[in-house]
Amino acid sequence: MIKRFKAILAAFAVLMVMHSAYGDEATAPVSALSAEDFSKAKALFFNRCAGCHGTTRKGATGPNITDENLKKKGYTAEVAEAFITNGTPGGMPSFGGDFSEADIDILANFLMQPPPIPPEMSLEEMTDSWKLIIPEAQRPKKPEHTKNWKNFFGIVLRDAGKVAILDGDTKEVVNIVDTGFAVHILRSSASGRYFYSIGRDGKATMIDLWMAKPDKVAEVKTCQEARSIDSSKYKGKKGNFEDKLAIIGCYWPPHFVIIDGQTLEPKKVVSTRAYAYDSGEYLNESRVAAIIAAHKEPEWFINLKEAGFIWAIDYSDMKNLQVTMIETERYMHDGGWDATHRYIQMAANMKNKMVVVDSETKKQIAQVETGQKPHPGRGANWVDPEFGPVTATPHLGEATMVAWGSDPKWHPKNAWKVVRKFATLGGGGLFVKTHPKASHIWVDHTLNPDDKIKRSICAYEKAKPTAKGKCWEVADHGRVTHFEYNQAGTEVWVAVWDQVGELVIYDDKTLKEIKRIKADWLRTPTGHFNVYNTMTDTY
Amino acid sequence: MIKRFKAILAAFAVLMVMHSAYGDEATAPVSALSAEDFSKAKALFFNRCAGCHGTTRKGATGPNITDENLKKKGYTAEVAEAFITNGTPGGMPSFGGDFSEADIDILANFLMQPPPIPPEMSLEEMTDSWKLIIPEAQRPKKPEHTKNWKNFFGIVLRDAGKVAILDGDTKEVVNIVDTGFAVHILRSSASGRYFYSIGRDGKATMIDLWMAKPDKVAEVKTCQEARSIDSSKYKGKKGNFEDKLAIIGCYWPPHFVIIDGQTLEPKKVVSTRAYAYDSGEYLNESRVAAIIAAHKEPEWFINLKEAGFIWAIDYSDMKNLQVTMIETERYMHDGGWDATHRYIQMAANMKNKMVVVDSETKKQIAQVETGQKPHPGRGANWVDPEFGPVTATPHLGEATMVAWGSDPKWHPKNAWKVVRKFATLGGGGLFVKTHPKASHIWVDHTLNPDDKIKRSICAYEKAKPTAKGKCWEVADHGRVTHFEYNQAGTEVWVAVWDQVGELVIYDDKTLKEIKRIKADWLRTPTGHFNVYNTMTDTY
Repeated sequence: MIKRFKAILAAFAVLMVMHSAYGDEATAPVSALSAEDFSKAKALFFNRCAGCHGTTRKGATGPNITDENLKKKGYTAEVAEAFITNGTPGGMPSFGGDFSEADIDILANFLMQPPPIPPEMSLEEMTDSWKLIIPEAQRPKKPEHTKNWKNFFGIVLRDAGKVAILDGDTKEVVNIVDTGFAVHILRSSASGRYFYSIGRDGKATMIDLWMAKPDKVAEVKTCQEARSIDSSKYKGKKGNFEDKLAIIGCYWPPHFVIIDGQTLEPKKVVSTRAYAYDSGEYLNESRVAAIIAAHKEPEWFINLKEAGFIWAIDYSDMKNLQVTMIETERYMHDGGWDATHRYIQMAANMKNKMVVVDSETKKQIAQVETGQKPHPGRGANWVDPEFGPVTATPHLGEATMVAWGSDPKWHPKNAWKVVRKFATLGGGGLFVKTHPKASHIWVDHTLNPDDKIKRSICAYEKAKPTAKGKCWEVADHGRVTHFEYNQAGTEVWVAVWDQVGELVIYDDKTLKEIKRIKADWLRTPTGHFNVYNTMTDTY
Repeated sequence: MIKRFKAILAAFAVLMVMHSAYGDEATAPVSALSAEDFSKAKALFFNRCAGCHGTTRKGATGPNITDENLKKKGYTAEVAEAFITNGTPGGMPSFGGDFSEADIDILANFLMQPPPIPPEMSLEEMTDSWKLIIPEAQRPKKPEHTKNWKNFFGIVLRDAGKVAILDGDTKEVVNIVDTGFAVHILRSSASGRYFYSIGRDGKATMIDLWMAKPDKVAEVKTCQEARSIDSSKYKGKKGNFEDKLAIIGCYWPPHFVIIDGQTLEPKKVVSTRAYAYDSGEYLNESRVAAIIAAHKEPEWFINLKEAGFIWAIDYSDMKNLQVTMIETERYMHDGGWDATHRYIQMAANMKNKMVVVDSETKKQIAQVETGQKPHPGRGANWVDPEFGPVTATPHLGEATMVAWGSDPKWHPKNAWKVVRKFATLGGGGLFVKTHPKASHIWVDHTLNPDDKIKRSICAYEKAKPTAKGKCWEVADHGRVTHFEYNQAGTEVWVAVWDQVGELVIYDDKTLKEIKRIKADWLRTPTGHFNVYNTMTDTY
């Protein structure tokens, strides 16, 4: 109750400042920023705000906050400051703890000025940035170690600009690899041998896990800003594409880039600038937020966040790329497969929906209204004792984790209908996870404004699902985020995300803590990815 | 000889001015234009220059003439004036006769300033412009006249902003329809009942030929600038799309728009902004220059001029549009089918090539080097006595019409190889035409700088092809352009394009003039389209 009250108080604070803003302050002049402050604000915005509000601030997961729109609403820099500091109950995180007051001040002033537009990027520039550190011929022909590399974990150390490779069997550090600025996610190549990382600054790297000391073998920068990368996973009648290609989805410039899966050499760039599927308005900022790689066809499914499309890209003929532009919903964010790898389930989180695309027919077949701003990560698939196979998402904007039927073949009555609602401790949930062999489903509250809640996770029993899970605080510092299972599906890893940083490993059956990793190198851990689960899309 | 000498003289004039420009005039200040002159120059550029040089002047069929590039080359406004006045032997028309000296002066000055960028256009704005003049329910259920409407001709009266409908049997005027500014082409719906027109200003109209007095039944504006329109022609297992849809290819904004074939209501807009297939550079101006409608599949083939792609668009599922992005060559211009309607043959005229795409496999299968700037219109298909089925194009930049083998199935040795070269009277050729039942192949020289040549046409015998055809002057005024056969393939219509305007009709067998139409309404006739030949893609 206290937590809810606090959130309501924060909202009131915002509303009160807003109220005063409708008075004579609304036309107060905007204070100019120095070049240094402008540049600092630009970097802050890029790192922490652009993801939800867009580089050109036209809105996506978060609302339109262009200077024009803010002024139209009568918002001043002071109002903006209140929003940034306190967040909103609707899903806007509070940055009061993370940012200094001075930083919030310049950021708010930055918002009152027209957004700077980042430059375009040609294939030639991408190629110029490409570094093949260890060519294929010089790489091992078989693993140079006897470790169980399919149970390795890649741990994103965001602010440190590194990825730690840990042995999932022994929990020991295998290597810490320099990847550069703010890695967003890792994906595994089809064979699992390579980890591909993508940074928020559009830089991709490739780590070879067969090396005695797994390390970076190539890097390339294909965007000014990015969030997604994946690999070609198809092997079949149309060819063997395992480890052959990779794709990077960019936020800016709005495009996707196909790169060589062995070297990261840029091969092809395709613009995703598009017209919104509903309003038919041209979007100069039409970003690729997530990519899902098909196993049964040589295809990637990417979403166009602002435009409300999922594009199916057939990569089997690179000179004659085939793109199916599937109308879905705005604004697309993240998502994943159902358990059979047939159905794409993607959050249109400003519409409080998950959209479902059948990868075989390449059509949207359903939309599931789940709650305020679903944020599934890749979601979680399990078999509910009553409703059969389901998929679930937590929410940014409400205290629920919701599961819907995702087996239209054998459970058509439940298909794409919400069948269970689980109570979480609050909004700000980013990730849910389980594993086919696991007993529990796990959920976080990473972006909750309340200190206790943002550090708490909940686990729910698969076999005997109850509305309330078992919840506890993982640490007394940072924000707790993201889950990953080991290959066997018996252990769950979760990160404590701050400058100190911890990795906590639980037994999935007993929910008991197995190990708590604290170390100097463990700065700002965010996502963590098990090779086997990532290469096979097991979630 | 005299004509060639004149062309060479004109070229020398240009080169001499260029030479002096490399001296101290190169840095002469640019004289500012008044708002009125700027607006006039903008309109002139849009109407007569943008087609080849691009709205943003980055070049396509003509070279890059951005102010930056002109200044880099040391060109002054005076040099630009010389080019505009005299043209070049490489294919730039001379505008000395058409434009006043004052107009050339302001146009040249306009070129020394940064190009104004036209606005974007949303589906909503397109819908706002849509006028359904006669709804489907109020249209005739069968033809309200006994005329042979499949042998009607639509005659574009460019500067008059009208389309004349003539009866091909009687040569009488059926009606003169207000279509608005500078219609570029007409296309027939699959049934032939409707003529769709597209204006350079992006306005499309639809004429119902079944009405007692055929007239405009709908109009819509989907672009600021356009060149192409076509209809859905497929009827088969995947549905009956005859007369159901149409597509407009825009120059600006760079996109295509799918509209209702019965009402012109805008249904869908897709951006064609793209990266150049070769350099991988982002093109904000990536225009659709030509569209070819498939008969055997529910598909349109459009080209992306600057980017060097042909896109195959499957329109059978409008919510899940499938686009195959076929790499070909830059810069794409115009083209058409082979005789079997399987192969797309499109000019990449800055590369002096025709590219060939197999519409079944959706791959480029050949490139044919034909000569300096091929400009086929839709080309001409016939059976050569020695080489079998061939297709031909004239050239903007040289005095030839060239034919290549286009029957890989039965004449694989000749396929996509130049097998015949015909001498024309000079460059500036825009169109070639024949008909399966015709005896001759006809070619024009519309953009030739020489008065006699631009008014002359040549005809070549199909059965006994000779390098030199029979050539003659059609009129002593205007530019002579474009051919169309009647439905039976026995008569050839050609236009004398100027403010007086004539339509001259020849007997295809004897080459004798049958009729010469002169009339008050016949102002600036350019293209003319026979219903049957257009609906069936007979050329």
